Amino acid sequence: MAESQKTVALFGATGSIGSSTLDLVLRHPERFRVSILTGGRNVKLLSQLALRFRPDHVAIADEKLLPELRDNLASEGASEGAGEGIEVHGGDAAIADLARIDADLTVAAITGMAGLMPVLNAVERGGVIAIANKESIVTAGALILEAAKKSGAVLLPMDSEHNAIMQAMVGQKPESIDRIILTASGGPFWDWSGEQMQSATPQQAVNHPNWSMGAKISVDSATMMNKGLEVIEAGVLFDLPEDRIRVMIHRQSLVHGIVCYRDGSMLAQMGDADMRVPISHCLAWPDRLDWQPEPLSLDALASMTFEQPDPDRFPCLELAREAMRAGGLAPTSLNAANEVAVEHFLNGSIGFLDIAGLNRHILDTIDHPASLALDAIISHDRMVRKSCHEWLAQQHGINR
Amino acid sequence: MAESQKTVALFGATGSIGSSTLDLVLRHPERFRVSILTGGRNVKLLSQLALRFRPDHVAIADEKLLPELRDNLASEGASEGAGEGIEVHGGDAAIADLARIDADLTVAAITGMAGLMPVLNAVERGGVIAIANKESIVTAGALILEAAKKSGAVLLPMDSEHNAIMQAMVGQKPESIDRIILTASGGPFWDWSGEQMQSATPQQAVNHPNWSMGAKISVDSATMMNKGLEVIEAGVLFDLPEDRIRVMIHRQSLVHGIVCYRDGSMLAQMGDADMRVPISHCLAWPDRLDWQPEPLSLDALASMTFEQPDPDRFPCLELAREAMRAGGLAPTSLNAANEVAVEHFLNGSIGFLDIAGLNRHILDTIDHPASLALDAIISHDRMVRKSCHEWLAQQHGINR
Repeated sequence: MAESQKTVALFGATGSIGSSTLDLVLRHPERFRVSILTGGRNVKLLSQLALRFRPDHVAIADEKLLPELRDNLASEGASEGAGEGIEVHGGDAAIADLARIDADLTVAAITGMAGLMPVLNAVERGGVIAIANKESIVTAGALILEAAKKSGAVLLPMDSEHNAIMQAMVGQKPESIDRIILTASGGPFWDWSGEQMQSATPQQAVNHPNWSMGAKISVDSATMMNKGLEVIEAGVLFDLPEDRIRVMIHRQSLVHGIVCYRDGSMLAQMGDADMRVPISHCLAWPDRLDWQPEPLSLDALASMTFEQPDPDRFPCLELAREAMRAGGLAPTSLNAANEVAVEHFLNGSIGFLDIAGLNRHILDTIDHPASLALDAIISHDRMVRKSCHEWLAQQHGINR
Repeated sequence: MAESQKTVALFGATGSIGSSTLDLVLRHPERFRVSILTGGRNVKLLSQLALRFRPDHVAIADEKLLPELRDNLASEGASEGAGEGIEVHGGDAAIADLARIDADLTVAAITGMAGLMPVLNAVERGGVIAIANKESIVTAGALILEAAKKSGAVLLPMDSEHNAIMQAMVGQKPESIDRIILTASGGPFWDWSGEQMQSATPQQAVNHPNWSMGAKISVDSATMMNKGLEVIEAGVLFDLPEDRIRVMIHRQSLVHGIVCYRDGSMLAQMGDADMRVPISHCLAWPDRLDWQPEPLSLDALASMTFEQPDPDRFPCLELAREAMRAGGLAPTSLNAANEVAVEHFLNGSIGFLDIAGLNRHILDTIDHPASLALDAIISHDRMVRKSCHEWLAQQHGINR
């Protein structure tokens, strides 16, 4: 039924969220049509996806790869002219522009600060935007909320934890909420000593026990900065102060979020550690998609554990709370520092514990302006990254 | 603020649900005013409650106790004329009539078939009715739903399990639900062998591990007929077939109900095993009441277990499913037989396993008419009780 078919604009198609989203689209071609696909650098995969899903527009962030993308679409194997009717674009600005085109659902799945402009443009346009890019909410949350208020855009959190909280809040009044609990798997180093973490390798850090995710978010999970950013994100999305957002370690990743009401009731969302669960919720919202998932076994629920996080071994969680309490652009500072730190950890130039070290240094030494204007955010983000590189040069002799 | 004060008509004030309801009313006199109080036989407690809460009407089911109720209200200790302005009534018919008087919230907490007429009258009148009397839904569910449809009455389930399911269904479309799970503590005989149950005493049966409840429902919990009746009740209230209502043994009584959606999400309501949690939800609905409950510790959640019920040792659960599948007045038959059986078990004239025996006998030998008219239900209920007494006379030599 073409009437009920939704157009889906997918920003960040070649990553983990993108691939889960497209898996669901493939299962329900009668419900969804992909109108936009964008990727970062993986031009081969992006070309394949474009030929398979035939969007109106395809774009690659790295402009150098634009000719290759064009070539791939012009003559893909036996099927000459297979890419006909697909407009091809390159560069971050082109991707941000594509977010101005109407779509029934925009999926914002670009990782890091790079995802901000597409999110902001989509929100200014209005419509329904599923947000998997937590960095944009962390770094420019107030701006995005303001734009959404003006345009009437609906923000659907796609992160499993925030999606869980949204589900457990449906139809409830904000004043009836006492607190919310975000669960955290604890990541691959949950039971490691500080000494062991000192020599943790990128390969060990991206080896997540429950979730299959990209490298950046996997490292964030290992430092628990991911949970810290999620606390900030939850504060923005659900309008809650830091002290009403709790984090509990829940190794099994079956309960994703809990809302505690003032009358003693708690509502929890549970499901397999499969991103298709929250993604399908956003895709079909306000309906639900019967994509034939395996039902979660109650035996699995019987072995659940909940523990307090250890602030000594995972200082990043507390750093995020500190940035949240400081307000203004402190979360923007932290997010920028963390992106730089994780990049350098992944390329082997700093150690695992240096991630928290750089984050701590930036929070302690940078002034965080209160202004929440886009220009201020972008120039502050650049300035923080510059300070990070200075620290990296001084402390680790790293020159760009 | 008198404008927002709700009038509460409480049918069944002297029982366990009644006392928890009044505990919450006492904590929030600005929110609630009791307009009607009724009791069965406990005239002393009912008198005390009437003098304390000063309703417009008070009624005792047992008419022989009416003079005593009058006396108590006319001259309670030092405070002469303390009962002035309270109208006093006696008998089942008078109680049923009181349910026709307007109230912002009617709490139907009378146990057993005796609760049917007040529920039906309240539902015909319209308004919001909190149902703790599951027997009325089991025995006359279709009739009550039809009356609610006509009058626009809202039914709020007060049973912790059904209240949990209602909470986990807010704002969701029925077609997105795959199945629901009602949890069961398993009762005091959960780990007893059939042989041990053979000689179980009433005192052992009413000794519930988690919940503080009345004698009838405690015995039903020990046989698991309580969960069977709840499966039937859930089918009526949530319009679900028997095979989409699962039961899981959950010894800790912290998760009360789970709704499983077709997209792989599950929403669970959790809370302490304290009836004030679901009762407060009904009292304040659609708001929530901040009655300062202790927050549930997540450590408690960490020790949760879930198991399948054992149909061999707890045949009553399967008998209820059988009655549900048979439809028509089969649930009415089962409810009547169970009420007679539990009464005789409590007074020591039959053994614990005879409860299932009598229920089995009635389901196997009685024809269950399809008619769902009130007259038919009441006369069928009487006929079944008569058959029960014949069986009790034959099998156990019990004469009334």
